[in-house]
Amino acid sequence: MISKNQIKFIQSLHSKKNRDQEELFIIEGVKLVNEFLLTSLFEIHSVYGTLDFINKNKHIIDKSKTIINEISEEELKKISLQSSPNQILAVIKANMPKLNTVLLNSAINLFLDDIRDPGNLGTIIRIADWFGIKQIICSPTSTELFNPKTLQASMGAVLRVNVVYMEFDELKKELKDVSIYGAVLNGQNIYLSALQNGLIVIGNEANGISENTLKQITHPITIPAATNNGSESLNAANACGMICSEFFRQLNFK
Amino acid sequence: MISKNQIKFIQSLHSKKNRDQEELFIIEGVKLVNEFLLTSLFEIHSVYGTLDFINKNKHIIDKSKTIINEISEEELKKISLQSSPNQILAVIKANMPKLNTVLLNSAINLFLDDIRDPGNLGTIIRIADWFGIKQIICSPTSTELFNPKTLQASMGAVLRVNVVYMEFDELKKELKDVSIYGAVLNGQNIYLSALQNGLIVIGNEANGISENTLKQITHPITIPAATNNGSESLNAANACGMICSEFFRQLNFK
Repeated sequence: MISKNQIKFIQSLHSKKNRDQEELFIIEGVKLVNEFLLTSLFEIHSVYGTLDFINKNKHIIDKSKTIINEISEEELKKISLQSSPNQILAVIKANMPKLNTVLLNSAINLFLDDIRDPGNLGTIIRIADWFGIKQIICSPTSTELFNPKTLQASMGAVLRVNVVYMEFDELKKELKDVSIYGAVLNGQNIYLSALQNGLIVIGNEANGISENTLKQITHPITIPAATNNGSESLNAANACGMICSEFFRQLNFK
Repeated sequence: MISKNQIKFIQSLHSKKNRDQEELFIIEGVKLVNEFLLTSLFEIHSVYGTLDFINKNKHIIDKSKTIINEISEEELKKISLQSSPNQILAVIKANMPKLNTVLLNSAINLFLDDIRDPGNLGTIIRIADWFGIKQIICSPTSTELFNPKTLQASMGAVLRVNVVYMEFDELKKELKDVSIYGAVLNGQNIYLSALQNGLIVIGNEANGISENTLKQITHPITIPAATNNGSESLNAANACGMICSEFFRQLNFK
Protein backbone atom coordinates (compact mmCIF):
# COMPACT_ATOMS: atom_id res chain seq x y z
CA MET A 1 0.00 0.00 0.00
CA ILE A 2 1.05 3.53 -0.69
CA SER A 3 -0.83 6.65 0.38
CA LYS A 4 -1.54 9.68 -1.79
CA ASN A 5 0.86 11.68 0.34
CA GLN A 6 3.61 9.13 -0.13
CA ILE A 7 3.08 9.21 -3.90
CA LYS A 8 3.29 13.00 -3.83
CA PHE A 9 6.41 12.91 -1.69
CA ILE A 10 8.24 10.44 -3.96
CA GLN A 11 7.23 12.40 -7.04
CA SER A 12 8.72 15.50 -5.42
CA LEU A 13 12.08 13.68 -5.34
CA HIS A 14 12.04 13.61 -9.15
CA SER A 15 13.47 17.12 -8.95
CA LYS A 16 17.03 17.89 -7.84
CA LYS A 17 15.91 20.79 -5.64
CA ASN A 18 13.79 18.49 -3.48
CA ARG A 19 16.41 15.72 -3.44
CA ASP A 20 18.93 18.21 -2.10
CA GLN A 21 16.52 19.56 0.49
CA GLU A 22 15.33 16.17 1.74
CA GLU A 23 18.78 14.53 1.38
CA LEU A 24 17.10 11.58 -0.30
CA PHE A 25 17.33 10.03 -3.75
CA ILE A 26 15.51 7.41 -5.82
CA ILE A 27 16.76 4.20 -7.39
CA GLU A 28 14.78 1.81 -9.59
CA GLY A 29 14.87 -1.67 -11.06
CA VAL A 30 15.47 -5.12 -9.63
CA LYS A 31 19.24 -5.30 -10.10
CA LEU A 32 20.11 -1.85 -8.76
CA VAL A 33 17.71 -1.94 -5.80
CA ASN A 34 18.90 -5.41 -4.79
CA GLU A 35 22.49 -4.15 -4.71
CA PHE A 36 21.42 -1.29 -2.43
CA LEU A 37 19.41 -3.67 -0.21
CA LEU A 38 22.55 -5.71 0.41
CA THR A 39 24.96 -2.85 1.06
CA SER A 40 25.53 -1.02 4.31
CA LEU A 41 26.99 2.05 2.57
CA PHE A 42 23.66 3.80 2.21
CA GLU A 43 20.73 3.86 4.62
CA ILE A 44 17.37 2.90 3.12
CA HIS A 45 14.44 5.26 3.66
CA SER A 46 11.63 3.22 2.06
CA VAL A 47 11.06 0.59 -0.62
CA TYR A 48 8.05 0.05 -2.88
CA GLY A 49 7.74 -3.17 -4.87
CA THR A 50 5.22 -5.23 -6.78
CA LEU A 51 4.04 -8.61 -5.48
CA ASP A 52 6.05 -10.19 -8.29
CA PHE A 53 9.24 -8.60 -6.93
CA ILE A 54 8.47 -9.65 -3.37
CA ASN A 55 7.82 -13.26 -4.41
CA LYS A 56 10.94 -13.58 -6.53
CA ASN A 57 13.43 -11.87 -4.21
CA LYS A 58 12.58 -13.34 -0.81
CA HIS A 59 16.19 -14.33 -0.02
CA ILE A 60 17.48 -10.79 -0.60
CA ILE A 61 14.60 -9.16 1.27
CA ASP A 62 15.13 -11.52 4.25
CA LYS A 63 18.87 -10.93 4.25
CA SER A 64 18.50 -7.15 4.14
CA LYS A 65 15.75 -7.09 6.79
CA THR A 66 14.02 -4.30 4.88
CA ILE A 67 10.25 -3.85 4.80
CA ILE A 68 8.97 -3.73 1.21
CA ASN A 69 5.72 -1.81 0.75
CA GLU A 70 3.70 -3.83 -1.71
CA ILE A 71 2.24 -1.68 -4.50
CA SER A 72 0.46 -2.30 -7.79
CA GLU A 73 1.97 -1.81 -11.25
CA GLU A 74 -0.25 1.27 -11.61
CA GLU A 75 1.02 2.79 -8.35
CA LEU A 76 4.61 2.05 -9.38
CA LYS A 77 4.05 3.91 -12.64
CA LYS A 78 2.95 6.96 -10.68
CA ILE A 79 6.13 7.20 -8.60
CA SER A 80 8.59 5.97 -11.25
CA LEU A 81 10.70 8.10 -13.58
CA GLN A 82 10.91 5.34 -16.18
CA SER A 83 8.59 4.70 -19.09
CA SER A 84 8.54 0.97 -18.25
CA PRO A 85 9.15 0.69 -14.49
CA ASN A 86 10.83 -2.53 -13.40
CA GLN A 87 9.02 -3.92 -10.29
CA ILE A 88 10.76 -1.94 -7.57
CA LEU A 89 11.66 1.57 -6.45
CA ALA A 90 13.61 2.59 -3.36
CA VAL A 91 14.17 5.89 -1.60
CA ILE A 92 17.69 6.14 -0.18
CA LYS A 93 19.31 8.53 2.30
CA ALA A 94 21.90 10.65 0.52
CA ASN A 95 24.98 10.71 2.69
CA MET A 96 27.78 12.40 0.79
CA PRO A 97 31.01 10.40 1.02
CA LYS A 98 34.20 12.12 2.25
CA LEU A 99 37.56 12.26 0.50
CA ASN A 100 39.80 9.29 1.27
CA THR A 101 43.27 10.87 1.37
CA VAL A 102 45.12 7.57 1.71
CA LEU A 103 43.51 6.37 -1.52
CA LEU A 104 44.19 9.74 -3.12
CA ASN A 105 47.92 9.46 -2.57
CA SER A 106 48.44 5.77 -3.25
CA ALA A 107 46.37 4.80 -6.31
CA ILE A 108 44.77 6.07 -9.49
CA ASN A 109 42.05 8.65 -8.84
CA LEU A 110 39.90 10.58 -11.30
CA PHE A 111 39.09 14.28 -11.13
CA LEU A 112 36.07 15.24 -13.25
CA ASP A 113 36.29 18.93 -14.09
CA ASP A 114 32.71 19.98 -14.75
CA ILE A 115 31.22 16.84 -16.33
CA ARG A 116 27.64 17.92 -17.05
CA ASP A 117 25.87 14.89 -18.49
CA PRO A 118 24.48 12.45 -15.87
CA GLY A 119 24.85 9.56 -18.32
CA ASN A 120 28.54 10.39 -18.76
CA LEU A 121 29.10 10.58 -14.99
CA GLY A 122 27.37 7.22 -14.45
CA THR A 123 29.35 5.63 -17.28
CA ILE A 124 32.63 6.96 -15.89
CA ILE A 125 31.84 5.51 -12.43
CA ARG A 126 31.13 2.15 -14.11
CA ILE A 127 34.44 2.32 -16.03
CA ALA A 128 36.34 3.22 -12.84
CA ASP A 129 34.77 0.25 -11.08
CA TRP A 130 35.83 -2.09 -13.92
CA PHE A 131 39.47 -1.03 -13.65
CA GLY A 132 39.55 -0.98 -9.85
CA ILE A 133 39.70 2.80 -9.52
CA LYS A 134 38.19 3.39 -6.09
CA GLN A 135 37.76 7.16 -5.94
CA ILE A 136 36.41 9.91 -8.19
CA ILE A 137 36.50 13.56 -7.24
CA CYS A 138 34.02 15.83 -9.06
CA SER A 139 34.23 19.60 -9.28
CA PRO A 140 31.19 21.14 -7.52
CA THR A 141 29.90 22.32 -10.93
CA SER A 142 29.72 18.70 -12.16
CA THR A 143 26.38 16.96 -12.53
CA GLU A 144 24.65 15.35 -9.55
CA LEU A 145 25.67 11.89 -8.31
CA PHE A 146 22.12 11.18 -7.17
CA ASN A 147 20.50 12.07 -10.49
CA PRO A 148 18.48 8.99 -11.52
CA LYS A 149 20.26 8.90 -14.91
CA THR A 150 23.67 8.87 -13.22
CA LEU A 151 22.65 6.03 -10.92
CA GLN A 152 21.12 4.05 -13.79
CA ALA A 153 24.21 4.42 -16.00
CA SER A 154 26.57 3.52 -13.13
CA MET A 155 24.89 0.10 -12.82
CA GLY A 156 25.52 -0.10 -9.09
CA ALA A 157 29.18 0.90 -9.37
CA VAL A 158 28.30 3.86 -7.16
CA LEU A 159 28.36 1.35 -4.27
CA ARG A 160 32.00 0.48 -4.93
CA VAL A 161 33.53 3.78 -6.02
CA ASN A 162 33.89 6.69 -3.59
CA VAL A 163 32.50 9.75 -5.38
CA VAL A 164 33.15 13.08 -3.64
CA TYR A 165 32.63 16.70 -4.66
CA MET A 166 35.24 19.38 -4.06
CA GLU A 167 37.09 22.23 -5.75
CA PHE A 168 40.36 21.34 -7.41
CA ASP A 169 42.22 23.88 -5.26
CA GLU A 170 40.95 22.18 -2.09
CA LEU A 171 41.89 18.75 -3.46
CA LYS A 172 45.35 20.04 -4.37
CA LYS A 173 46.10 20.71 -0.69
CA GLU A 174 45.67 17.00 0.05
CA LEU A 175 47.93 15.78 -2.78
CA LYS A 176 51.38 14.58 -1.75
CA ASP A 177 53.79 14.50 -4.68
CA VAL A 178 51.26 12.93 -7.04
CA SER A 179 51.44 13.18 -10.85
CA ILE A 180 48.49 15.10 -12.27
CA TYR A 181 47.57 13.78 -15.72
CA GLY A 182 45.19 15.80 -17.86
CA ALA A 183 43.38 14.68 -21.01
CA VAL A 184 44.05 17.49 -23.50
CA LEU A 185 44.22 17.85 -27.28
CA ASN A 186 47.95 18.47 -27.63
CA GLY A 187 49.54 16.44 -24.86
CA GLN A 188 51.99 13.58 -24.99
CA ASN A 189 50.84 10.48 -26.91
CA ILE A 190 49.31 8.39 -24.10
CA TYR A 191 50.56 5.13 -25.65
CA LEU A 192 54.15 6.40 -25.51
CA SER A 193 53.94 7.97 -22.04
CA ALA A 194 55.23 6.11 -19.02
CA LEU A 195 52.05 6.15 -16.95
CA GLN A 196 52.04 5.67 -13.19
CA ASN A 197 49.64 6.03 -10.31
CA GLY A 198 48.29 9.55 -10.14
CA LEU A 199 45.31 11.83 -10.54
CA ILE A 200 43.69 11.79 -14.00
CA VAL A 201 41.76 14.95 -14.88
CA ILE A 202 38.89 14.68 -17.39
CA GLY A 203 37.40 17.93 -18.64
CA ASN A 204 33.97 19.22 -19.55
CA GLU A 205 32.19 17.67 -22.57
CA ALA A 206 32.37 20.84 -24.68
CA ASN A 207 35.18 22.93 -23.23
CA GLY A 208 37.66 20.44 -21.81
CA ILE A 209 39.65 21.15 -18.66
CA SER A 210 39.11 24.59 -17.08
CA GLU A 211 41.86 27.17 -17.21
CA ASN A 212 42.47 27.07 -13.47
CA THR A 213 42.81 23.28 -13.34
CA LEU A 214 44.87 23.21 -16.53
CA LYS A 215 47.65 25.16 -14.78
CA GLN A 216 48.06 22.33 -12.27
CA ILE A 217 48.45 19.53 -14.82
CA THR A 218 51.95 18.06 -14.62
CA HIS A 219 51.45 15.48 -17.39
CA PRO A 220 49.25 16.54 -20.33
CA ILE A 221 48.26 13.41 -22.27
CA THR A 222 46.37 12.78 -25.52
CA ILE A 223 44.75 9.81 -27.24
CA PRO A 224 46.18 10.26 -30.74
CA ALA A 225 43.84 10.13 -33.72
CA ALA A 226 44.55 8.40 -37.03
CA THR A 227 46.19 10.85 -39.42
CA ASN A 228 43.53 10.22 -42.03
CA ASN A 229 40.62 10.79 -39.66
CA GLY A 230 38.18 13.66 -39.89
CA SER A 231 36.89 13.55 -36.36
CA GLU A 232 37.53 16.38 -33.97
CA SER A 233 36.83 14.79 -30.65
CA LEU A 234 35.77 11.81 -28.60
CA ASN A 235 32.90 11.75 -26.12
CA ALA A 236 34.23 12.54 -22.61
CA ALA A 237 33.17 9.20 -21.09
CA ASN A 238 34.64 7.29 -24.02
CA ALA A 239 37.95 9.14 -23.84
CA CYS A 240 37.99 8.49 -20.09
CA GLY A 241 37.45 4.77 -20.77
CA MET A 242 40.37 4.58 -23.20
CA ILE A 243 42.63 6.48 -20.80
CA CYS A 244 41.73 4.24 -17.84
CA SER A 245 42.28 1.19 -20.07
CA GLU A 246 45.78 2.37 -21.05
CA PHE A 247 46.72 3.15 -17.42
CA PHE A 248 45.45 -0.31 -16.43
CA ARG A 249 47.47 -1.96 -19.21
CA GLN A 250 50.71 -0.16 -18.39
CA LEU A 251 50.43 -0.72 -14.63
CA ASN A 252 49.53 -4.40 -14.93
CA PHE A 253 50.55 -5.91 -18.25
CA LYS A 254 53.66 -4.12 -19.45
CA MET B 1 8.67 29.78 -46.04
CA ILE B 2 7.32 26.36 -45.31
CA SER B 3 3.83 25.11 -46.17
CA LYS B 4 1.53 23.15 -43.88
CA ASN B 5 2.01 20.13 -46.12
CA GLN B 6 5.79 20.39 -45.89
CA ILE B 7 5.58 20.60 -42.09
CA LYS B 8 3.37 17.51 -42.05
CA PHE B 9 5.72 15.67 -44.40
CA ILE B 10 8.84 16.40 -42.33
CA GLN B 11 7.03 15.45 -39.14
CA SER B 12 6.16 12.12 -40.77
CA LEU B 13 9.91 11.47 -41.12
CA HIS B 14 10.18 11.47 -37.33
CA SER B 15 9.09 7.82 -37.52
CA LYS B 16 11.29 5.04 -38.84
CA LYS B 17 8.50 3.52 -40.91
CA ASN B 18 8.11 6.67 -42.96
CA ARG B 19 11.87 7.23 -43.25
CA ASP B 20 12.19 3.73 -44.71
CA GLN B 21 9.28 4.23 -47.08
CA GLU B 22 10.39 7.65 -48.34
CA GLU B 23 14.12 6.78 -48.26
CA LEU B 24 14.77 10.09 -46.55
CA PHE B 25 16.16 11.09 -43.16
CA ILE B 26 16.52 14.22 -41.06
CA ILE B 27 19.59 15.91 -39.65
CA GLU B 28 19.69 18.97 -37.40
CA GLY B 29 22.03 21.60 -36.03
CA VAL B 30 24.55 23.98 -37.57
CA LYS B 31 27.62 21.74 -37.38
CA LEU B 32 26.05 18.54 -38.69
CA VAL B 33 24.04 20.18 -41.47
CA ASN B 34 27.07 22.16 -42.65
CA GLU B 35 29.06 18.94 -42.94
CA PHE B 36 26.30 17.42 -45.06
CA LEU B 37 26.06 20.58 -47.20
CA LEU B 38 29.73 20.25 -48.10
CA THR B 39 29.78 16.52 -48.83
CA SER B 40 28.87 14.81 -52.07
CA LEU B 41 28.21 11.46 -50.35
CA PHE B 42 24.53 12.15 -49.71
CA GLU B 43 22.06 13.98 -51.90
CA ILE B 44 20.14 16.77 -50.20
CA HIS B 45 16.36 16.78 -50.48
CA SER B 46 15.54 20.08 -48.77
CA VAL B 47 16.93 22.42 -46.12
CA TYR B 48 15.07 24.69 -43.67
CA GLY B 49 16.98 27.36 -41.76
CA THR B 50 16.44 30.50 -39.75
CA LEU B 51 17.54 33.91 -41.06
CA ASP B 52 20.27 33.81 -38.43
CA PHE B 53 21.67 30.61 -39.95
CA ILE B 54 21.49 32.00 -43.48
CA ASN B 55 23.29 35.20 -42.49
CA LYS B 56 26.06 33.47 -40.60
CA ASN B 57 26.78 30.61 -43.03
CA LYS B 58 26.81 32.37 -46.41
CA HIS B 59 30.18 30.92 -47.46
CA ILE B 60 29.03 27.34 -46.88
CA ILE B 61 25.64 27.90 -48.50
CA ASP B 62 27.31 29.48 -51.56
CA LYS B 63 29.86 26.70 -51.80
CA SER B 64 27.23 23.96 -51.56
CA LYS B 65 24.87 25.67 -54.03
CA THR B 66 21.92 24.54 -51.93
CA ILE B 67 18.70 26.52 -51.58
CA ILE B 68 17.87 27.15 -47.92
CA ASN B 69 14.18 27.66 -47.19
CA GLU B 70 14.02 30.45 -44.65
CA ILE B 71 11.74 29.62 -41.73
CA SER B 72 10.97 31.14 -38.34
CA GLU B 73 12.07 29.74 -34.99
CA GLU B 74 8.45 28.70 -34.39
CA GLU B 75 8.28 26.80 -37.67
CA LEU B 76 11.60 25.11 -36.92
CA LYS B 77 10.23 23.96 -33.57
CA LYS B 78 7.35 22.29 -35.37
CA ILE B 79 9.54 20.16 -37.66
CA SER B 80 12.39 19.54 -35.20
CA LEU B 81 12.88 16.51 -32.97
CA GLN B 82 14.94 18.47 -30.46
CA SER B 83 13.74 20.36 -27.41
CA SER B 84 15.96 23.33 -28.35
CA PRO B 85 16.34 23.24 -32.15
CA ASN B 86 19.57 24.75 -33.45
CA GLN B 87 18.83 27.02 -36.44
CA ILE B 88 18.76 24.46 -39.23
CA LEU B 89 17.19 21.16 -40.33
CA ALA B 90 17.88 19.22 -43.51
CA VAL B 91 16.12 16.34 -45.21
CA ILE B 92 18.61 13.98 -46.87
CA LYS B 93 18.21 11.15 -49.38
CA ALA B 94 19.04 7.85 -47.73
CA ASN B 95 21.22 5.95 -50.12
CA MET B 96 22.50 2.84 -48.36
CA PRO B 97 26.24 2.41 -48.85
CA LYS B 98 27.57 -0.88 -50.27
CA LEU B 99 30.23 -3.12 -48.76
CA ASN B 100 33.77 -2.16 -49.77
CA THR B 101 35.48 -5.56 -50.06
CA VAL B 102 38.97 -4.12 -50.62
CA LEU B 103 38.68 -2.24 -47.32
CA LEU B 104 37.22 -5.35 -45.69
CA ASN B 105 40.27 -7.45 -46.51
CA SER B 106 43.01 -4.89 -45.96
CA ALA B 107 42.22 -2.92 -42.78
CA ILE B 108 40.40 -3.01 -39.46
CA ASN B 109 36.63 -3.31 -39.87
CA LEU B 110 33.93 -3.53 -37.19
CA PHE B 111 30.98 -5.93 -37.22
CA LEU B 112 28.17 -4.87 -34.88
CA ASP B 113 26.12 -7.89 -33.95
CA ASP B 114 22.73 -6.51 -33.01
CA ILE B 115 23.62 -3.17 -31.42
CA ARG B 116 20.21 -1.81 -30.39
CA ASP B 117 20.82 1.61 -28.93
CA PRO B 118 21.06 4.45 -31.50
CA GLY B 119 23.32 6.43 -29.15
CA ASN B 120 25.71 3.49 -28.96
CA LEU B 121 25.77 3.08 -32.76
CA GLY B 122 26.47 6.78 -33.26
CA THR B 123 29.20 6.74 -30.61
CA ILE B 124 30.84 3.69 -32.21
CA ILE B 125 30.87 5.40 -35.62
CA ARG B 126 32.53 8.43 -33.99
CA ILE B 127 35.15 6.19 -32.32
CA ALA B 128 35.85 4.38 -35.60
CA ASP B 129 36.35 7.72 -37.32
CA TRP B 130 38.82 8.82 -34.63
CA PHE B 131 40.99 5.77 -35.13
CA GLY B 132 40.76 5.77 -38.93
CA ILE B 133 38.50 2.71 -39.15
CA LYS B 134 36.71 3.27 -42.45
CA GLN B 135 34.02 0.59 -42.48
CA ILE B 136 31.41 -0.77 -40.06
CA ILE B 137 29.14 -3.67 -40.93
CA CYS B 138 25.92 -3.93 -38.88
CA SER B 139 23.76 -7.04 -38.58
CA PRO B 140 20.30 -6.30 -40.07
CA THR B 141 18.82 -6.50 -36.55
CA SER B 142 21.00 -3.60 -35.41
CA THR B 143 19.52 -0.17 -34.85
CA GLU B 144 18.96 2.23 -37.75
CA LEU B 145 21.81 4.33 -39.15
CA PHE B 146 19.41 7.14 -40.04
CA ASN B 147 17.82 7.36 -36.60
CA PRO B 148 18.23 11.01 -35.52
CA LYS B 149 19.92 9.89 -32.27
CA THR B 150 22.47 7.83 -34.19
CA LEU B 151 23.30 10.73 -36.48
CA GLN B 152 23.53 13.17 -33.57
CA ALA B 153 25.86 10.91 -31.58
CA SER B 154 28.05 10.23 -34.61
CA MET B 155 28.85 13.96 -34.90
CA GLY B 156 29.23 13.80 -38.67
CA ALA B 157 31.47 10.72 -38.61
CA VAL B 158 28.78 9.02 -40.68
CA LEU B 159 30.19 11.00 -43.64
CA ARG B 160 33.61 9.42 -43.26
CA VAL B 161 32.83 5.85 -42.19
CA ASN B 162 31.13 3.41 -44.56
CA VAL B 163 28.26 1.83 -42.58
CA VAL B 164 26.59 -1.13 -44.29
CA TYR B 165 23.99 -3.66 -43.14
CA MET B 166 24.32 -7.38 -43.88
CA GLU B 167 24.11 -10.80 -42.25
CA PHE B 168 27.34 -12.17 -40.84
CA ASP B 169 27.03 -15.25 -43.06
CA GLU B 170 26.90 -13.05 -46.16
CA LEU B 171 29.85 -10.99 -44.96
CA LYS B 172 31.80 -14.16 -44.27
CA LYS B 173 31.73 -15.07 -47.98
CA GLU B 174 33.64 -11.87 -48.76
CA LEU B 175 36.34 -12.39 -46.13
CA LYS B 176 39.71 -13.58 -47.43
CA ASP B 177 41.87 -15.08 -44.71
CA VAL B 178 41.02 -12.33 -42.20
CA SER B 179 41.27 -12.74 -38.41
CA ILE B 180 37.89 -12.44 -36.74
CA TYR B 181 38.24 -10.92 -33.26
CA GLY B 182 35.28 -11.08 -30.91
CA ALA B 183 34.78 -9.14 -27.68
CA VAL B 184 33.73 -11.82 -25.17
CA LEU B 185 33.89 -12.31 -21.39
CA ASN B 186 36.45 -15.12 -21.32
CA GLY B 187 38.77 -14.45 -24.24
CA GLN B 188 42.48 -13.75 -24.33
CA ASN B 189 43.63 -10.66 -22.44
CA ILE B 190 43.54 -8.00 -25.17
CA TYR B 191 46.65 -6.26 -23.81
CA LEU B 192 48.66 -9.49 -24.16
CA SER B 193 47.26 -10.50 -27.58
CA ALA B 194 49.23 -9.74 -30.74
CA LEU B 195 46.56 -7.76 -32.55
CA GLN B 196 46.59 -7.30 -36.32
CA ASN B 197 44.26 -6.01 -39.01
CA GLY B 198 41.02 -7.93 -39.00
CA LEU B 199 37.33 -7.86 -38.32
CA ILE B 200 36.33 -6.91 -34.76
CA VAL B 201 32.92 -8.21 -33.65
CA ILE B 202 31.02 -6.27 -30.96
CA GLY B 203 27.92 -7.93 -29.52
CA ASN B 204 24.51 -6.81 -28.34
CA GLU B 205 24.30 -4.57 -25.24
CA ALA B 206 22.62 -7.21 -23.06
CA ASN B 207 23.42 -10.56 -24.66
CA GLY B 208 26.80 -10.11 -26.31
CA ILE B 209 27.68 -11.84 -29.58
CA SER B 210 25.00 -14.15 -31.02
CA GLU B 211 25.56 -17.88 -31.04
CA ASN B 212 25.82 -18.09 -34.81
CA THR B 213 28.45 -15.35 -35.07
CA LEU B 214 30.32 -16.65 -32.03
CA LYS B 215 31.16 -19.87 -33.92
CA GLN B 216 33.04 -17.85 -36.52
CA ILE B 217 35.28 -15.95 -34.08
CA THR B 218 38.91 -16.97 -34.57
CA HIS B 219 40.33 -14.69 -31.84
CA PRO B 220 38.16 -14.22 -28.73
CA ILE B 221 39.47 -11.20 -26.79
CA THR B 222 38.62 -9.62 -23.44
CA ILE B 223 39.32 -6.35 -21.67
CA PRO B 224 40.40 -7.67 -18.28
CA ALA B 225 38.87 -6.18 -15.14
CA ALA B 226 40.73 -5.38 -11.95
CA THR B 227 40.67 -8.36 -9.62
CA ASN B 228 39.15 -6.28 -6.83
CA ASN B 229 36.36 -4.88 -8.97
CA GLY B 230 32.70 -5.58 -8.49
CA SER B 231 31.51 -4.61 -11.93
CA GLU B 232 30.08 -7.17 -14.30
CA SER B 233 30.28 -5.41 -17.61
CA LEU B 234 31.17 -2.36 -19.63
CA ASN B 235 28.82 -0.46 -21.90
CA ALA B 236 29.12 -1.83 -25.47
CA ALA B 237 30.24 1.48 -27.00
CA ASN B 238 32.77 1.98 -24.22
CA ALA B 239 34.19 -1.50 -24.60
CA CYS B 240 34.38 -0.94 -28.36
CA GLY B 241 36.31 2.28 -27.75
CA MET B 242 38.87 0.57 -25.52
CA ILE B 243 39.29 -2.26 -28.04
CA CYS B 244 39.78 0.13 -30.97
CA SER B 245 42.25 2.11 -28.86
CA GLU B 246 44.31 -1.01 -28.11
CA PHE B 247 44.31 -2.11 -31.78
CA PHE B 248 45.40 1.40 -32.76
CA ARG B 249 48.19 1.38 -30.18
CA GLN B 250 49.53 -2.02 -31.18
CA LEU B 251 49.41 -1.33 -34.92
CA ASN B 252 51.01 2.11 -34.66
CA PHE B 253 52.97 2.57 -31.45
CA LYS B 254 54.39 -0.78 -30.45
